[in-house]
Amino acid sequence: MKLYFEDISVGMTFESDKYPPLSATQIVEFASDFDPQPFHLDPLEAKETFFGGLAASGWHTAAITMRLMVQTIPVAGGLVGAGADVTWPAAVRPGDVLRIVVTVESVRRSSSNPSRGFVGALIETLNQDDVVVQRSRVRMLAFSKEQN
Amino acid sequence: MKLYFEDISVGMTFESDKYPPLSATQIVEFASDFDPQPFHLDPLEAKETFFGGLAASGWHTAAITMRLMVQTIPVAGGLVGAGADVTWPAAVRPGDVLRIVVTVESVRRSSSNPSRGFVGALIETLNQDDVVVQRSRVRMLAFSKEQN
Repeated sequence: MKLYFEDISVGMTFESDKYPPLSATQIVEFASDFDPQPFHLDPLEAKETFFGGLAASGWHTAAITMRLMVQTIPVAGGLVGAGADVTWPAAVRPGDVLRIVVTVESVRRSSSNPSRGFVGALIETLNQDDVVVQRSRVRMLAFSKEQN
Repeated sequence: MKLYFEDISVGMTFESDKYPPLSATQIVEFASDFDPQPFHLDPLEAKETFFGGLAASGWHTAAITMRLMVQTIPVAGGLVGAGADVTWPAAVRPGDVLRIVVTVESVRRSSSNPSRGFVGALIETLNQDDVVVQRSRVRMLAFSKEQN
């Protein structure tokens, strides 16, 4: 079943399955490509840094969160983000098992194009101890059933 | 040269080198891992979607932007983000050559821990036609010279 604009309402929640345990190798590979800093690349050097040990790039956590969104929320026409406000309250460490809890906070039909609307959602990304490692508010497009 | 908290002031700007042309293969590989949706995965299927053709995941653009930040801004102790507000005004397409222009918008010493402070910056990610494909406001830590 696909969700159209009309199917989405404030207060709806979605919970993802668990992402497989994040390995140190995955953390280092992502960082090598996109965030090559000692605390994301080398467990020993990371000890001497702000993080006190190897931690995933926040953008890696954001990317995993997107992966879980795609698996979890069957929006018709796909998940198209207009923007996101992201914070990282806690570090993601090797072995962490991430999942997301999504809460719809706003729903508004577009005034310029009524065949679509905007959905605001809070996405909390949690680790295996229920610590929030990323909190994001996203603005997504949703497409109207009428026009499809 | 490394930049400490005291070295950073409102109005400073930084410009990155160009990221190598983004290939369709890179777009599809990132999306396969983190954002597996037709408009990021398959040039033919993408034609029938909102994007009208293959486009990079916004989180791929965000990750490339981070890579350019690391190459461009030599903050002492590393670039540690507290949060980011990201929008994607235009799609990133195969062959696009991205670069960033960073402007420091705020600098504030931490009241609870004066050995560090917070730097707010606007990051515009531009393509080869100077179109802004991502606009982000980030909040980063900066460490004081005094304590280092």
